[in-house]
Amino acid sequence: MAASVVISIPDGEGALALKKENKREKKHKHDLRKVIHSFKVGTALVLVSLLYLLDPLFGHVGENAMWAIMTVVVIFEFFAGATLSKGLNRGIGTILGGGLGCLAAALAEEVGGIGNAIVVGASVFIFAAAATYARLIPRIKKRYDYGALIFILTFNLVVVSGIRAEKVMVLARERLSTIAMGFAICIFISLLVFPIWASDELHDSMASKFQDLARALEGCLEEYFGFINEKENQQPSTANFASCKSILNSKAKDESLANFAKWEPWHGKFGLSYPWGKYLQIGEHLREIAATILSLKGSLQSPRQPPTTMRETFKEPCEAVGLLLAPTLRELGESVLKMRRCHAEASILPKLKSMRVELNSVMSPSKLGPIENGGFAVATFVFMLMEMVEK
Amino acid sequence: MAASVVISIPDGEGALALKKENKREKKHKHDLRKVIHSFKVGTALVLVSLLYLLDPLFGHVGENAMWAIMTVVVIFEFFAGATLSKGLNRGIGTILGGGLGCLAAALAEEVGGIGNAIVVGASVFIFAAAATYARLIPRIKKRYDYGALIFILTFNLVVVSGIRAEKVMVLARERLSTIAMGFAICIFISLLVFPIWASDELHDSMASKFQDLARALEGCLEEYFGFINEKENQQPSTANFASCKSILNSKAKDESLANFAKWEPWHGKFGLSYPWGKYLQIGEHLREIAATILSLKGSLQSPRQPPTTMRETFKEPCEAVGLLLAPTLRELGESVLKMRRCHAEASILPKLKSMRVELNSVMSPSKLGPIENGGFAVATFVFMLMEMVEK
Repeated sequence: MAASVVISIPDGEGALALKKENKREKKHKHDLRKVIHSFKVGTALVLVSLLYLLDPLFGHVGENAMWAIMTVVVIFEFFAGATLSKGLNRGIGTILGGGLGCLAAALAEEVGGIGNAIVVGASVFIFAAAATYARLIPRIKKRYDYGALIFILTFNLVVVSGIRAEKVMVLARERLSTIAMGFAICIFISLLVFPIWASDELHDSMASKFQDLARALEGCLEEYFGFINEKENQQPSTANFASCKSILNSKAKDESLANFAKWEPWHGKFGLSYPWGKYLQIGEHLREIAATILSLKGSLQSPRQPPTTMRETFKEPCEAVGLLLAPTLRELGESVLKMRRCHAEASILPKLKSMRVELNSVMSPSKLGPIENGGFAVATFVFMLMEMVEK
Repeated sequence: MAASVVISIPDGEGALALKKENKREKKHKHDLRKVIHSFKVGTALVLVSLLYLLDPLFGHVGENAMWAIMTVVVIFEFFAGATLSKGLNRGIGTILGGGLGCLAAALAEEVGGIGNAIVVGASVFIFAAAATYARLIPRIKKRYDYGALIFILTFNLVVVSGIRAEKVMVLARERLSTIAMGFAICIFISLLVFPIWASDELHDSMASKFQDLARALEGCLEEYFGFINEKENQQPSTANFASCKSILNSKAKDESLANFAKWEPWHGKFGLSYPWGKYLQIGEHLREIAATILSLKGSLQSPRQPPTTMRETFKEPCEAVGLLLAPTLRELGESVLKMRRCHAEASILPKLKSMRVELNSVMSPSKLGPIENGGFAVATFVFMLMEMVEK
């Protein structure tokens, strides 16, 4: 957009262009991953269809090949962890449901006659209601929702058809083996061919959140103190606030990513450490910073602004804080990205402290200071963050 | 908890007890709904199992009764709207997938020989990859994710088994009719027997958010100005901040509720108006207020507090603002709950304006005012909100 031209800072234009370039690259990478995922699903389905298409294989598995196809379609998810989680859930749900279903069917057989149907009906009702209730408990819903669903399904199918098909055990064994085939194909393609890890996604999104926050903070300061010079360049700042808002709303996404990441096996740079819980905590703190920055927006857009002279008085310390905080956030992001300890702490902490004292002295002649308050809050959070990154 | 005793405001204790009572009642109501839902699922499954259990019915539908059971298990969701959405998605996906699958199978038949298998494999790959890519597009994912999944599944099953079973049309018709039976049972039980509407849930959660925010605002003021008297009653305020945070994180939940609500037919108090988009907007503003209140926490917990005398100076106008804003929020919540126009606007707007002037005059001798800034921001938002509620 042409609006980028009005920015007055010498390297502002270049930075913005770089930013856009980065964004486009990211989007491109994301699209590429989507295409790869689509191709993987297609390949997996063709492979599993071979069970039907090749005569010798079909003779071996028969109509049950249907279950392999169903398994592949249903459990193949975008992230490797999600596929694993769904697959294991499906497997465990099928085994549990099938086992209990066989028991119930056998019990019903014992009773015989009209009692048979009653026992079947009662067991269906009891197990279905119990498992459905379990699905509504948040902790179970989070990790085992799909397993409970499959448990109900399998139990019901087995116990009901147990009356008709006497050879229910054989049926169960055959179906289970085809489901296992489907699962194996999924796991093979999902984990070994261009795997898309939820843990990488979580990791990258954490790092880029730090960058976004730093950018938003800078945009905020720029807008507040650059207000006198020009009024047009509000567009970039709204964009920054939008990224703040998306950080605020990222909790659900982070949690589901962490949930998938927990299922993922040892891979790549993460080794045997599983820092997902820590990532969620960092995300929580980042959301608080985002909330603080967002509330600065209220002060920025408020029609009542302090006179320019007053603003000039505390321009310098504020900008100093901004110039310190933004790179700190960037550096923290970098250190998260590269998974190394942040060595900046030693150098930045005393600076932040002295900055605080200075701001203090500027404010003690009691100027109105929305930005400073924000700065304080951000500084406090940065302290907390640094302690966290230190592990 | 015993901490509730230390609150000094005369009716504070009663209010807190009332609050707790309310919460317990709400939780109880929620649990009851879960139990009802579980019983409904159980009943639906028993009903659909009758297709198997009763000989005349089984003679009619045969083994395809399996599909009816599967449909019930998979599409019966907690909210009526979710059930409808999943059911319709499943229906449309099945029909589309089945239709295209038949066409592809017929084409493959035409080719014959080894070409047959190649055509089948290629069509499976192309359609599966295309539909999977479509599932990753956010707008489609939001509403038609399940439909696309079922499309892939049905297409694949039909086209692959088309080679084996010549009477694929008959099979498709039978399966479709059993799926329709399952769907009918689900819709009947979900919509007519103690229905649980997503729209009601969205509506109630909006109204209770207003109350939570009002409470958090009061807690904030109380803590800030009551600081001098007592230090123990910090617990209720942290609870308030927790509710602020949960409001901040409510976006994903709200959106899915609104999404389900869109599928729900005309019912009860909503009549023919579908205000879900507006609810989402209100939710957005509420989240901004929550962010503002949350950032006040930073000022509250900051170790640097202005001297008590200064605090006393602006205690009065701040409390006045709080006393005005909190009931306004409550009233807005009430008016959302009861779906009537908020008549308070006329009376509160001028008051807010005069309050603003007053705060202005207190601050112009430039006191440090984090609370005031928050108050301003909240006031601004309340203005916006009132305009929105006015429709």
